[in-house]
Order: sequence, then C-alpha cells, then structure tokens
Amino acid sequence: MNNFSSPYLIFLGDLQDRVNAKTGQGLVDWCPEKCLAQLRLPTCTIDLGLPDMTIQQAKQAGARSMIIGIAPVGGRIKQEWIPLFEECLRSSIDIINGLHTRLDEIPALTKALKSSLAEIVHLRTPPENLVIGTGAKRKGKRVLTIGTDCGVGKKYTALSLHRTLESRGVKSTFRATGQTGIMISGSGIPIDSVVVDFVSGAAEMLSPDNDLDHWDVIEGQGALHHPGYAAVSLGLLHGSQPDAIVLCHEASRHELGGFPGYAIGSLRQRVDEALLLAKMTNPEVRCAGISVNTAWLTDSSGQDYLRMLSHETQLPCVDPLAGDLSPIVDNLLMQS
Amino acid sequence: MNNFSSPYLIFLGDLQDRVNAKTGQGLVDWCPEKCLAQLRLPTCTIDLGLPDMTIQQAKQAGARSMIIGIAPVGGRIKQEWIPLFEECLRSSIDIINGLHTRLDEIPALTKALKSSLAEIVHLRTPPENLVIGTGAKRKGKRVLTIGTDCGVGKKYTALSLHRTLESRGVKSTFRATGQTGIMISGSGIPIDSVVVDFVSGAAEMLSPDNDLDHWDVIEGQGALHHPGYAAVSLGLLHGSQPDAIVLCHEASRHELGGFPGYAIGSLRQRVDEALLLAKMTNPEVRCAGISVNTAWLTDSSGQDYLRMLSHETQLPCVDPLAGDLSPIVDNLLMQS
Repeated sequence: MNNFSSPYLIFLGDLQDRVNAKTGQGLVDWCPEKCLAQLRLPTCTIDLGLPDMTIQQAKQAGARSMIIGIAPVGGRIKQEWIPLFEECLRSSIDIINGLHTRLDEIPALTKALKSSLAEIVHLRTPPENLVIGTGAKRKGKRVLTIGTDCGVGKKYTALSLHRTLESRGVKSTFRATGQTGIMISGSGIPIDSVVVDFVSGAAEMLSPDNDLDHWDVIEGQGALHHPGYAAVSLGLLHGSQPDAIVLCHEASRHELGGFPGYAIGSLRQRVDEALLLAKMTNPEVRCAGISVNTAWLTDSSGQDYLRMLSHETQLPCVDPLAGDLSPIVDNLLMQS
Repeated sequence: MNNFSSPYLIFLGDLQDRVNAKTGQGLVDWCPEKCLAQLRLPTCTIDLGLPDMTIQQAKQAGARSMIIGIAPVGGRIKQEWIPLFEECLRSSIDIINGLHTRLDEIPALTKALKSSLAEIVHLRTPPENLVIGTGAKRKGKRVLTIGTDCGVGKKYTALSLHRTLESRGVKSTFRATGQTGIMISGSGIPIDSVVVDFVSGAAEMLSPDNDLDHWDVIEGQGALHHPGYAAVSLGLLHGSQPDAIVLCHEASRHELGGFPGYAIGSLRQRVDEALLLAKMTNPEVRCAGISVNTAWLTDSSGQDYLRMLSHETQLPCVDPLAGDLSPIVDNLLMQS
C-alpha cells in the first residue's frame, strides 16, 4: 500500500473545468491540514482557495509532495509540465501521480530520479505482493459503502462515516480504494487497477485484522448492478467481509450514467441483492442505511424523498450533504 | 486475441506428475490433429502417447509452434531449458508459453528473437486494446459454462457442448478463457489475467456479434460463490450475456477445494443465484442443465445421483464423461 508524505503542493496545470479539479477539491475538503499550496499555470482558471506557490516557495514552506490530481482530457500530460516535474524531483519533493501516464518512463524524469532523494508514486499501480482471496475471517469490524452507480457519493459517505465515528470516540480507519481517497488518506489500494484474480485478495489486504472494537470504513467502487464494473464491486465486497453495508445513491438518477437502458430499479432490491452476495464471506452482514445525495431533485423536496425511501426500505435514509449521518451511525453501532 | 500456428511440438520438460501434464493431455484429447510430437528430457516420466522428437526432427516434420504447457512447481522455468528454447526460435518455431515467467525477458531469448522469424506468444498476457464493458446487446446466441468450484469441468463441458452442437450441424464456436482452452482452440482471452475494470469488456470482445443462429460456447472460470474468484466469474457472466448457462459440478465435492468452511450448498440455489446475476445483461437467460463429473462418487452410483439431482432441480443432469450431453443440448436448442 502507498504511504506518502505531506504537506502537499497541489498541481492544477492549466485546468479550466471544475469537474476535473475534483481530486484537488477533495483534498481541500477532507484534509485541509495537509494542503499547503496550489501551483497554477497562467491559463488556469480554477482556484482551490490555497496560496499560490512556485516549487521553490513550496519547498521553503516545507512541501514534501506535489500532487498531480487533475484529470486532463485524454489523461495525457503536457510537454511543458515536464520541466516543472524535474524541478520538483531536484528539490526533493515527491510527485504523487494520479494520471494513467507513468511519469517514471519519461526520459527526463527517469534521469532526474537518479540524482534525487525524491520518488514518483504512481497511484494507479497496485501492490506487487497481492494474493488470491482466502475468505478467512478477520478480527475487527468493517463497513463498506456500495453504490447504485458510479459517482453517487461512496467516497464522500465513507469519509463522513469515518468522521462521525471518530467524533464519537469510536476507533475507525478510512480505507481508500480510489486515487482521490488514497491521496486524502495517504494510503490505500487502487482496487480497479488490480488483476481480476487478485481483487478480493487485495480487499482482504486493505483491511487486515484489527482490534475487536475497531471499524474499518471502506470506500466502495462501481456498483454490483453495473455491466462494466460489477466485478470490481463484487471482489471488493467479498474481500471486505463487511459487517455492515451502506448503500449510496443520487436521488435524481434512474438509469446508470452512460448506460442507457440500465435501470437502477428498486433500492430495496439493490440492498437485498448486495446482502445476498455479501453473506458468502460474512453471514452476519446487515445494511445500516442509505446515503442519498438529494441536491439534484427537482420534483420533490429532499426531506420528502428521504421519508418515502425510509418507509419503503425500513432503513435510515440520510443526505450526508444536507445533514449528518448520525441515524446511519446509530444503526451501525447498534448492530455491533 | 491470440491466434497461433499448428502443428505443435509439446514440451514436457522433466515432468513426473500427471496432474501438471493436464494442458498437454488436454491438447491430445481435444485437438489430436494439431499435436505432432512431444519433447521430453531424460528424467521425464510422463508420456502423452505422441512420437518423441528433437526440435530438429519436429522442424523437419513441419512443427510450427512449441507448446510449453507444463506447470512446474513454483511456475519457474529451469536454466537448462533455455538453450532448447533458443534452438526453437532459431529454427523458426514459435514458442507458446503458458507459464507466468515472461520468456522474452530472458536475455538469451531476447537476443534469439531478434534474429528469428519466430515469436514467443505469452498466453497470460491479455490484449492491450481492452475497454470497459458496455452492456450493449450483441447478435447471435451464447452459452456459458459456470462452476460450483474450480476444476469441476467447465472447459471440458464447453468443449463437449461445442462438439455436440457441431455434430448436429449447428453453427458453433468454442471461446476459450484459460490457457489450456486457448491452446486447444488457438485463440481466446486469459480472462483471469485482465485488470478488473476491463473484465466484462474482455468477455464482450471474446464473443462479438455473430449470425443469429450461431452459438458461442464460452468456457467459464472460477465460481460465483467463491471467495477468491467470484469477481472473474461475475465479469465473465455479465460480459458474455449468455442466453443459457450450464452449471458444472463434481459430485463428491461438498466444500470449495482449499477453502475449508465454504460449502457448495444446494445446486438449485447456485443456479438461481447465477440466473439472478446474469439477468442484468440478458433478461432472457435460462439454465440449460447441469454437467456433473460423477467419477469420484463412493456412496451412490452416478446414475442414481443424476436422477436425484434432476428431480431436485428440474433440469437435465448429465455426466459428460459417462454419457453425452444430448439432453442439455436438446434443452439449449429448444429454448432458442
């Protein structure tokens, strides 16, 4: 698993689109204490509200890693960024790379690495020592967020659950499975980059044995009911052996984004199917509640929607953006 | 997808264990017309019943590929084999490598490759142009074998179904997903080596659009109810969009091999769960029957077992080793 050094200088390049700044925004939202400054090229129009610094200024202010958390169109890096990356390595600042392109294969950076104490951490590379899942029971408690689709708040919900547990004095660790989550927590496994034979094994490695009263809050990926991503969701579910799942949903969505004809369907059915599959590695698994983003609802109020959903599913249903997750956490702790 | 040249020289090395000869045996059983000869070192005690030949003799007899289908302990190749592999490349015979070790990274072989027309095909390398599964409906018919565990006859059943369909004049293609199947058919995708995000996409690529009355018979992998391999099984199921599934089982097995405490449970339940999951990409999916290896039964006769199972599941249940798969194929074609 990765494990890297803060504070961070966040590289925004020439970004002009807030959607592609979501990794940087996630860092500022969830670990502001790790975010020292932002580095923006003249054409960049996004502002994360951090001080602007050059690499030298950041170095002097104590930066230990530069985060490349933007997602440029096509995932490619630009030629004019490379001298900046070289300077970073020469200044002994690690580069945390969330792009698909492997920076250590760019000749100028291969060379810079050789004479530097800094390293390039490639977030999309899974650990090399992965093994096949064993299904053996582990100690400690686990909750996994699962989704009705991609981009419905699985990471946000997991981070919120973790915060709420901590605020109540419950021992808890957030376990990241995607690049933004890994940057926020400083460690994790990019589960969707793992070879399929090892995916449940990777999930087992991510949340090892722990104290009996400790909760691992595991960031979910994909959706079990998704024609592209169900495999990663199932491997993560089996390897996580969750004691509880929390379903995440975006209230205005009725079909999978980008997959016309694939209905999300009944949320009670999504919960029941997930429990059926999860029971294989943990027969005691239960659903602690549903976390719903109601911000995009147009035909009813968020409160009405949540009340109706709660009635239909007999589960606590909460919008983590509009309120707090206490009803779900109450249920979670009651079960344990 | 791979696609390689026969006839084959089968390299058995110093093999002394019949279990590790199963790839070579599979080739002799399923495509004897492609198997020219075997190459055995002096300490090898396994005999596939093929003529013994040196590389030069095989070359003169027309060999176009040498198959390395053995699975040595630890998956490592031995130093003394390398000169043989060099000779192979120098004689313009391709090497089909089913081992984990990448032969093209061994310096002597890297060098031999440069001055040879032959190539090394690494069977565990998936195609590079994989995409995420779309879930879009494809033309033609598909049947997928699924298992209650590993090593329960998914490949054997798929090959038998394909043979039976062909013998009835039905258009059919066997689609291989594991290394032995790929060697037998000469093409396929090693599905368990694919990065998890692309596994259903790889399955979609494996069985593209086809004639409306053509059957793709797809080799299953793993088991949906397996703590290590469910992810690969689910991705393959979703991407295959099968019109029919055939469950494969080994009658004496009550627990997953090597996973104590993981019961196989009711076969009717295994079928129903698989259909529930398969319906997502093909709502019309049905189970055509159960293919059971009854050879290891000690407490009842195979015929009694199959009769009982058929009564319990209301499905045709056949032992493909003891009889033929006609009842399952009848059911398959009736459905279509």
